[in-house]
Amino acid sequence: MADQDAQSPVGIEPSALPVLRWDELPEGPALVLLDQTRLPAEEAELVCTDAPALVRAIRMLAVRGAPLLGIAGAYGVALAAARGDEVAEAAELLERARPTAVNLGYGVRRAVGAYEAAIGKGADPGRAAEAALSEARALHREDAEASGRMARFGLALLDELLSGGGHQLLTHCNTGALVSGGEGTAFAVALGAHREGRLRRLWVDETRPLLQGARLTAYEAARIGMPYSLLTDNAAGSLFAAGEVDAVLIGADRIAADGSVANKVGSYPLAVLAKYHHVPFIVVAPTTTVDLDTPDGASITVEQRSGSEVTELTSPQVGVAGGDVVGVLVAPVGTPAYNPAFDITPPELVTAIVTEEGVVSPVTGVGLAELCARSSQVTIS
Amino acid sequence: MADQDAQSPVGIEPSALPVLRWDELPEGPALVLLDQTRLPAEEAELVCTDAPALVRAIRMLAVRGAPLLGIAGAYGVALAAARGDEVAEAAELLERARPTAVNLGYGVRRAVGAYEAAIGKGADPGRAAEAALSEARALHREDAEASGRMARFGLALLDELLSGGGHQLLTHCNTGALVSGGEGTAFAVALGAHREGRLRRLWVDETRPLLQGARLTAYEAARIGMPYSLLTDNAAGSLFAAGEVDAVLIGADRIAADGSVANKVGSYPLAVLAKYHHVPFIVVAPTTTVDLDTPDGASITVEQRSGSEVTELTSPQVGVAGGDVVGVLVAPVGTPAYNPAFDITPPELVTAIVTEEGVVSPVTGVGLAELCARSSQVTIS
Repeated sequence: MADQDAQSPVGIEPSALPVLRWDELPEGPALVLLDQTRLPAEEAELVCTDAPALVRAIRMLAVRGAPLLGIAGAYGVALAAARGDEVAEAAELLERARPTAVNLGYGVRRAVGAYEAAIGKGADPGRAAEAALSEARALHREDAEASGRMARFGLALLDELLSGGGHQLLTHCNTGALVSGGEGTAFAVALGAHREGRLRRLWVDETRPLLQGARLTAYEAARIGMPYSLLTDNAAGSLFAAGEVDAVLIGADRIAADGSVANKVGSYPLAVLAKYHHVPFIVVAPTTTVDLDTPDGASITVEQRSGSEVTELTSPQVGVAGGDVVGVLVAPVGTPAYNPAFDITPPELVTAIVTEEGVVSPVTGVGLAELCARSSQVTIS
Repeated sequence: MADQDAQSPVGIEPSALPVLRWDELPEGPALVLLDQTRLPAEEAELVCTDAPALVRAIRMLAVRGAPLLGIAGAYGVALAAARGDEVAEAAELLERARPTAVNLGYGVRRAVGAYEAAIGKGADPGRAAEAALSEARALHREDAEASGRMARFGLALLDELLSGGGHQLLTHCNTGALVSGGEGTAFAVALGAHREGRLRRLWVDETRPLLQGARLTAYEAARIGMPYSLLTDNAAGSLFAAGEVDAVLIGADRIAADGSVANKVGSYPLAVLAKYHHVPFIVVAPTTTVDLDTPDGASITVEQRSGSEVTELTSPQVGVAGGDVVGVLVAPVGTPAYNPAFDITPPELVTAIVTEEGVVSPVTGVGLAELCARSSQVTIS
């Protein structure tokens, strides 16, 4: 842990959550994660010393959120390389750990690319591993910077769309510092509004089945001192009907070339509600989340997760020493459950997509492609 | 318990759940409830020997569901009368136990009316108590019969609205034998479709925060052997988008004179989704749920419940001896929560209201008033 400060990417405040860091332990290099499955009960670290351990951490959602998965994937490749493991094999394992978030594959490929380029230039494996790690750190830093830019673009958009006074913003799942090298995506915009005194309330969907809203977003909002209220996902309708939602802000796990947005299940119903109530529905995601190779929403693979996530309540117990994870079966034994992890919101329901390169609104394939082209120029330059 | 069979209302199958029954215990009369807070972990009885005990049972949702609350309220008055307690006071307590379900007050007033009419005719308190009990039993029987008629009307409506083949029906909360003197409201329609071999699947919303769908509807569906799948409330959007929902069937806690429907929170978002996807949204409720004294949705009092229902997961533990109730805090300590128990669906989003007297579609105040007039004639005659 001694090298934590030295290795923190620039642009992260000292108070930021240590969600992910590279460490050189006596037994070798490691990727140290804040175990998000233990939040908010405790801030526990999970040490991954090889790629398979990281794959398990990704599958169990100890590390999650599209941008952070990209960063984790890149460090995972660096870890395999630093240990002298088979890099291509590790990359394949990592890339397949979760099918929907495009950033994971992006991060993996960037680190693999750096590793292979170094090898191609005659570097020995040790040097090539350093190149992979350097690329992971670059992605980490870029993502932190992208957070800041998305927050500024998003805030300017809110000013444009909403009349003055405090905003009441509704969000789903978790999109803050826990998913990012910086302050996050959608949450970073709400945080920006809070810092400028323009956040009246952040409505936090609990986000069943895994309660990322209750466990993680509420944790981040409480930690910062933002005005927030938690609600069951199905109570959002009452807020819309009462005129208590000025805008919806969500992140994305993959954005198809036509602007279809894959995000945590429950996003699409919010988009339909927002449309019905003429409330802006805003997606905030870095351009790395845009997948121009996926033409439309129907082409996005939606991860189906175990029905036990629905039939059993599992959560770390807040306030209990050791943060015991309690699992309670709440439906009759043998109950079948439908449990897609994500849903797809078509572009016609999305008011705007906010990226670190600017805003696309209305959401069109051409607009998205232009932003992504701008982003690649920046990245490549 | 010896008199259970003799006192069962007509029209209930022997296999029906013993959700509520009057009993003459050695220590006096009692209302014996199936404690719904213990389901599906165990089928435990809760014995109420006076009205305050019943009020507590109603508040903690041991007995719940609009029609059953009406029946329970009537028996509660009979209980107070049989014990020689102050009937008017007990009636007031009972009527105020939960503010949204209109049936509760209806049942209470019917039993009070019978009691007072008997007193007015010179009956002694013992005879008047018998009149109140007799009225409660009449309401119980009428409700069982109404279930059967709603199921037939609802099934005919599905035939009219949907093309042939098996129906995929989505329901929210719990509307079966656990809420009724008979087989329920919306659930009874799905059950009718199942019996006729026309139910392809019943999609069961888990219904946060208290999980009546997971705990109670899944329990009823599993008990009967219906094809069903459980889902988180926010996954319904994906089913609509995939064309996997042919109709939504829900119950109601109060229907205003204009056709606005108060029902379990989460109903309104389903109505908006159904509208957006051109799927019929059908409300099934006895005419006793219609409150012609409440002009519109804005006039309906929506019960706000404790935020702890959202911030803590509480459920009887299935498969654990004694059915321990486990409460687990899932959000940071001190998290504020917005927790309305119901929401309001305006008539323009409701395809049809199915009652025991027939179907109103399109939903208009005039149509509703006509059905209710027909119902009162039947009841009074």
